[in-house]
Amino acid sequence: MGSQLNTGVPIRLPPTKNTTAEKLLVAASELMIERSAVEVSLSDIAQKSGVNAALVKYHFGNKDGLLLALLARDAATEMAQLEYLLAQPITPTAKLRLHIAGIIRAYHQFPYMNRLIHYLLHESSADAADEVSKFFVAPLLDFHRRLLAEGIKAGEFRNIDPVLFYTSLIGACDHLFFARHAMSRASGVGPVTDEVCRQYIRHMEALICGGMLTTNTETAILTSG
Amino acid sequence: MGSQLNTGVPIRLPPTKNTTAEKLLVAASELMIERSAVEVSLSDIAQKSGVNAALVKYHFGNKDGLLLALLARDAATEMAQLEYLLAQPITPTAKLRLHIAGIIRAYHQFPYMNRLIHYLLHESSADAADEVSKFFVAPLLDFHRRLLAEGIKAGEFRNIDPVLFYTSLIGACDHLFFARHAMSRASGVGPVTDEVCRQYIRHMEALICGGMLTTNTETAILTSG
Repeated sequence: MGSQLNTGVPIRLPPTKNTTAEKLLVAASELMIERSAVEVSLSDIAQKSGVNAALVKYHFGNKDGLLLALLARDAATEMAQLEYLLAQPITPTAKLRLHIAGIIRAYHQFPYMNRLIHYLLHESSADAADEVSKFFVAPLLDFHRRLLAEGIKAGEFRNIDPVLFYTSLIGACDHLFFARHAMSRASGVGPVTDEVCRQYIRHMEALICGGMLTTNTETAILTSG
Repeated sequence: MGSQLNTGVPIRLPPTKNTTAEKLLVAASELMIERSAVEVSLSDIAQKSGVNAALVKYHFGNKDGLLLALLARDAATEMAQLEYLLAQPITPTAKLRLHIAGIIRAYHQFPYMNRLIHYLLHESSADAADEVSKFFVAPLLDFHRRLLAEGIKAGEFRNIDPVLFYTSLIGACDHLFFARHAMSRASGVGPVTDEVCRQYIRHMEALICGGMLTTNTETAILTSG
């Protein structure tokens, strides 16, 4: 796992108060990447990290606690980056493009993130879902509100609802990773490689900024009502 | 459940060979709507439908079999509509708009569809995931290929990759329903009502067709390279 995403924005990892806890998160993360699944047991993590199983329980309580801590670690990295991006002396459109690329790269860098979010929102306790909402959904939605307001004020974006925007952007980015297996079963669709990631970033930037109609068609539709 | 989606396109329900099987699917569907969850047991379904539990097993084998049959029933309705839409004497852009509205309304009409697809793709057997791919992912992707080719040929759409397009459109539509709980926990976001659905259809039509930049910004970006 690199210390920097490819957006050129440096990432500070959240301060680690406890090296044992951090070691366990690293082990959990590596196991999930190896197995392409979030189904890892506390005892697997203990074995992989060389940490006593009782300490795993001590630090995270149960499996949901560990999964939440892992998502919190990865999300903190992303959230710090959002604040940094908003403060840059570039246009709202340039920020939007960097954000789209950043979201897709984050999912690609932490390949288990998508499954982790889905699991915590739908298959674990209501408390866990609340936590995911608190440190993932709410800050991202807040960032979208501020970025859209800035772009609308600058005359670059048309008036667009932040909640609907959040839903469509995050849904489209998430789906590349969610649909990987289903689509690789459909003819002609391979796995999500680095190259597919780059293609999807270009696709999403173009779609979100300019849509898919040719300029002539758009003018015809705009002038016809 | 109406016999017609609001796109004005009539729906034929797939021919029902067995009324007991159909009765069980109706019971399963009603239970999932009542509970806002796909977690229903075969015995619950037997009780709700008044059909002997042994017959539930006879018709569907196990729970995955029943869930697959339910998704197949709902998807068949949608897939028949896709063919009908392609054959209409209207522009590719008009077909695209009707398709976006149709997808969002289908998810809204069958509120369990999103969870059902997620469950079958990720939490059930590989065979079940293959089936979902066969009657849901593959025909939809094929429809996108044909619609995009038609629109590009007509000069209405810019050149756009069908697989990337599928991923972003279906992901964005799916996420409105997937994210319902998570987002209602974030401040200012309510549940997906009929009105939210209509707003999202307008949002997605505008975003997919024309993007979010104002015309001036777009021209500036296009001319600057």
